[in-house]
Amino acid sequence: MTELSTPAPAGRSRGRSARRSARQGGVGQNKHLAVPFITRNIPTYDLLDEDNLVKIEQGADRILAEIGIEFRDDPETVNLFEKAGGQVTKISDTVWNIKFEPGMIREILKTAPERFTQHARNPANSVEIGGDAMVLAPSYGSPFVMEMGKERRYGTLNDFENFVKLAQSSPWLHHSGGTICEPTDIPVNKRHLDMVYAHMRYSDRAFLGSITAPERAVDNIEMSRILFGAEFVDNNCVIMGNFNSTSPLVWDGVSTQGIRVYAEAGQGSIHLPFLLGGAVSPVTNAGTIAQGLAESMVGCALTQLVRPGAPAILAMFHATMSLRSGSPTFGTPESALGSLVMGQLARRLKLPLRCAGNFSTSKLPDGQAMTQAMMSMMSAVQCGANYILHSAGFLDGLLSMSYEKFMLDLDVCGAMHTYLNGFEVNDDTMGISALAEGGPGEHLFGTAHTLAHYETAYWDSAINDDHPYETWSEQGEVDSMVRANGLWKKTLEEYQAPPLDSELDGQLKDFIARRKASMEDAWY
Amino acid sequence: MTELSTPAPAGRSRGRSARRSARQGGVGQNKHLAVPFITRNIPTYDLLDEDNLVKIEQGADRILAEIGIEFRDDPETVNLFEKAGGQVTKISDTVWNIKFEPGMIREILKTAPERFTQHARNPANSVEIGGDAMVLAPSYGSPFVMEMGKERRYGTLNDFENFVKLAQSSPWLHHSGGTICEPTDIPVNKRHLDMVYAHMRYSDRAFLGSITAPERAVDNIEMSRILFGAEFVDNNCVIMGNFNSTSPLVWDGVSTQGIRVYAEAGQGSIHLPFLLGGAVSPVTNAGTIAQGLAESMVGCALTQLVRPGAPAILAMFHATMSLRSGSPTFGTPESALGSLVMGQLARRLKLPLRCAGNFSTSKLPDGQAMTQAMMSMMSAVQCGANYILHSAGFLDGLLSMSYEKFMLDLDVCGAMHTYLNGFEVNDDTMGISALAEGGPGEHLFGTAHTLAHYETAYWDSAINDDHPYETWSEQGEVDSMVRANGLWKKTLEEYQAPPLDSELDGQLKDFIARRKASMEDAWY
Repeated sequence: MTELSTPAPAGRSRGRSARRSARQGGVGQNKHLAVPFITRNIPTYDLLDEDNLVKIEQGADRILAEIGIEFRDDPETVNLFEKAGGQVTKISDTVWNIKFEPGMIREILKTAPERFTQHARNPANSVEIGGDAMVLAPSYGSPFVMEMGKERRYGTLNDFENFVKLAQSSPWLHHSGGTICEPTDIPVNKRHLDMVYAHMRYSDRAFLGSITAPERAVDNIEMSRILFGAEFVDNNCVIMGNFNSTSPLVWDGVSTQGIRVYAEAGQGSIHLPFLLGGAVSPVTNAGTIAQGLAESMVGCALTQLVRPGAPAILAMFHATMSLRSGSPTFGTPESALGSLVMGQLARRLKLPLRCAGNFSTSKLPDGQAMTQAMMSMMSAVQCGANYILHSAGFLDGLLSMSYEKFMLDLDVCGAMHTYLNGFEVNDDTMGISALAEGGPGEHLFGTAHTLAHYETAYWDSAINDDHPYETWSEQGEVDSMVRANGLWKKTLEEYQAPPLDSELDGQLKDFIARRKASMEDAWY
Repeated sequence: MTELSTPAPAGRSRGRSARRSARQGGVGQNKHLAVPFITRNIPTYDLLDEDNLVKIEQGADRILAEIGIEFRDDPETVNLFEKAGGQVTKISDTVWNIKFEPGMIREILKTAPERFTQHARNPANSVEIGGDAMVLAPSYGSPFVMEMGKERRYGTLNDFENFVKLAQSSPWLHHSGGTICEPTDIPVNKRHLDMVYAHMRYSDRAFLGSITAPERAVDNIEMSRILFGAEFVDNNCVIMGNFNSTSPLVWDGVSTQGIRVYAEAGQGSIHLPFLLGGAVSPVTNAGTIAQGLAESMVGCALTQLVRPGAPAILAMFHATMSLRSGSPTFGTPESALGSLVMGQLARRLKLPLRCAGNFSTSKLPDGQAMTQAMMSMMSAVQCGANYILHSAGFLDGLLSMSYEKFMLDLDVCGAMHTYLNGFEVNDDTMGISALAEGGPGEHLFGTAHTLAHYETAYWDSAINDDHPYETWSEQGEVDSMVRANGLWKKTLEEYQAPPLDSELDGQLKDFIARRKASMEDAWY
C-alpha cells in the first residue's frame, strides 16, 4: 500500500505532522475535524412513537400532580412556586411538599431558551448549547484518581490542573467541565476558588462553577465578572452550575438556593436527577424516565421563576443495578435506551439536554470499560444530547478519574466528530470516475479521486494500533492502556497555557486570596 | 442494598443459579432473554433520506450499466446472465465483462425471499433470516488463534471444535457460523468435511458450509442430506455458503460456481463484497456503498437465475484505511455510518442483510478492541442487519480468533438482546404506584413493584466486574481479559454435546471417510 504515501512529501512531512500531532493531544491527520462545538449532521435515533412519548409525559405530570416534589430548607423557592400556582403543603418548618397541576411546569418552561451560547474567554471557543449543537466536556465529581501501575488515590489540585491541561490540549472536547476530580488537598470551602481559577488560567474554554453552597456559587460568578467584565456577565452566560435533585422527588435547599444564584445572575444551570433504578426510581425504564423528566423540569422551571429567559438544561443520569451484587452499573443497554427517549422528550419540551457520557463501572481502562463507555456514549450522541458531561475519564462508577481512560475517551470523542458529520452523497463522494478509471479488478490507490480525498477521508485514531501483528509485536506488544499512558504524559509535557492578561490574572489571584483569608478552613 | 437479596431464597437458589450459569456460558440472571433468534423490537436507525438513497441506488445502477462486472472461469454463469439480458463482452477465453441495463438486476431479484428459515437439526434452534429477525453468529475465516499469555498460533481443528462448543454453550449466539478459524492442521481439500462435521456434532444450531471449491460445497450439502434427509433438504434451507466478490467489480469462477451449487440445491448464500475504501473501492463512503450494493446484488441475482426463490442474502463488509500505516482499520465511524445506510438499502430491495459484527484491528482484547467492536456492532443491530457474522472472537483485523475476545463479545451479544427488546411503556412499567408507596425521599428497594420486577429488570453481564473498588481489589485486581480467560476454560470444561442419533453420526463419519480416501491431501 505504498502507493498511498507517494503523493505526500514523505519523511519531512511525516516528521512535522508527528510533532504537530503531539502538541495537539494526538489529533494527527484529523485536524480538519476540529470545531468549537459539534453541529450534528445526522438524524437523531428516535426510539418511541408519539403515543408512548405522550404516555411518559402524562406519567411525569401525574407524578407532579399526585405525589408532588418535596422542597427542603429554602422557603424562597417554595414562595416562588406557590405564587406560580403550586399547591404547597407544609410538612415541617423546613420541609414542604408542592403539587403541580398537569401542564403547569411546562407552561413556566416556555420562557426558557431552546438554544443559547456559553461564552469562553477565547471567543473562538464559545459554545452553543441546544438544537443541533453538541458540546463534549470531561467527567465530573470523582473523589479518586487512577493512574496506570499505581494504587487508586485521592485527587489533588495538581491532578485537577493536569486534567484541565489535558482537556485543553485536545481538540475533541469543547468545554473545560467543572469538578473534574475533587482536589481533596484543598479545604472544602475553598476548593471552588482554585478549581475555577484553574479552568480560567489553564484553559480558554467555557467551564462550570461551584454548586456545593450558594456563597461559593456567588464567588465563582464574581470571578467570572473579573474575567469577562460585570456588564458582559449580566447579559451573557459565561458560567454554569450542575445541580442534582435528591431522588426520588426531592429538591434540597443547597441545590435550589444555588440554582437561584445562577439564574439571578443570568447564568446557566443543569438540572440533574441521578436515578439508580430500583433504588431511587422505579426499577422499570419508563417509570425512571418519567420521574427524571418530572424532577428535571421542576429544577428548570425554578430558573424561569427567578429570571425568565435564564438558560436551563434538562438532564438525566440513569444507572441500573447489578442483580448479583446490588452495585450500580453504568453503560448498560437499559440506560442507553433511556437516553434515546430522553432526547425525544427534551426536543418536545424545546430544552437543551445533558445526558450520558463515557460511563463505566470498571476499575481499569480495559475491555469492560470501553464496552460500557461506548454503549453509553453512542446513546448520548444518537439521542441528540447537547451537553455531554462525563465525556472523558470516567471509571469506577464515577468514583475515579483515570488518566488513561481520559485519553481513550478523547479518542472516542474524536471518532464522534466523524460520526456526527454524517454521510455525504453527491457526485464527488460517489466516486464513479475512480471506479471507471481502472475498471473491474484494478485497485484505486493511485486514482485522482483517491489522491484528492485520502488525507481527510477517514478517522485516524491517535491511540489505536492498526499495524500488522508483526509490527505490533516488534514494538513491545502493548495494549491501549499503555499507549494512553504514554500519550497523556507526553501531552502534559508539551502543554502550553493559553495567554491570559496579567492584570486580570492578578485581580483573580487577589480575589481568591481575599476570599480565602476571610474564612477558616472547613473540611465538610 | 441488602434489601434486594431478601426476597430470593438466598444460598440455595444462588448455588443452583451459579451452576446453571456456568453450564450456559455465563447466562446468569438473564435466562429470560434467551431466544432462537432475536426479533427486533426497536426501530432501525435510518441515516439518509429518500433522495440520497435513490442517488446511491442510481450510482449502483450506473456502475452496473457503464462499467459492468467482470466474470472469470465460469461460462455457465455468463450464459445465465446473457440470457437474462446482460450485455456480454468477451475479454479472453476465461474472462467476460457484463453490463446490465439500469433496473435489470433489481427485476431479477424480485423472486428472492424477503425472509426465510434456515433449519437447525434441533428444530427449536431453527432461525429466521430477514425482516425484523436477527441472527448472531461467530467470527469467520481467521488463520490464527489467540489465547491469553500465549503467542499467536495457527488455528487447528481442536481450536475449531472448541469455538463450536463455546458458541453452542452461549445463549447469545443463534447460529454456529462457518469457518470459525482455519483448521490448518487438516489438508485444505479435506477441512470442509471436518468443519461441517464439528458443526453437526458439537452444535445443534444452523451453520455455514464450504465455499472454497464447488465440489466441497457439494460434499457439505451431501452431509446435510444425511443429517436432515434428502427430501427435506430439497425443500428447505439447512446450509448456507458465504461468498466473496473480488472487488472491485469482479466475481470469480470459484465463487459463482459455488453460488450455483447452493442455489441449485435450494440452499442459501451470502454475497459479500469485502471493501477496503481507497484500495478496492472509492475512498469516499457513498461510492463504497454504491459499489458494494452493485456487487452484492449481482451475486444475489445469480441465485435467482439458477433457481428462482432460492434464499440469498445481501451483504457488505466495509473497512477503512489507516492514514498513518496504510493498514486496514475496522470498527471506524465511517463503516458504522455505511452499515446504517446499507440497512436502508436492503429494506428497499426487500432482501435480508448481512453486515458488520464485533470488528477490531487490536491484537489484544483490550480497550481498543472493545471500542472498535462496539462502534461496529451497534451499527449492525441499529441498521437492522438480519445475519450478523463476526459477532464473536474477531481480533487482529480478522487474522485471529481470540478465545478471550470471544467471551467479551458474547457478553456484548447478550446485552444486544436487551437493547433490541426495546423500551416498553405501560401502566406497569411506569411504576407510579412504586413512587407513591413511599413518596418523596423514600427509596424503592422494598416496594411491591421493585420486588415483582427486579429479577428480570436489568441486563446482568457475566464478565463485567461491577463491584466496589475494594472488593475488586481483594479479588486480585484483574481486568476483563483475565475474567474472560477463566470463563471460556470453565465453559469448555462443563460443555456437554447435544445428543445426535448414533446411526446418523455413523453415516456422517462413513461419508467423510469415503471422501477423504478418494483424494490425496492437498495444501492449497
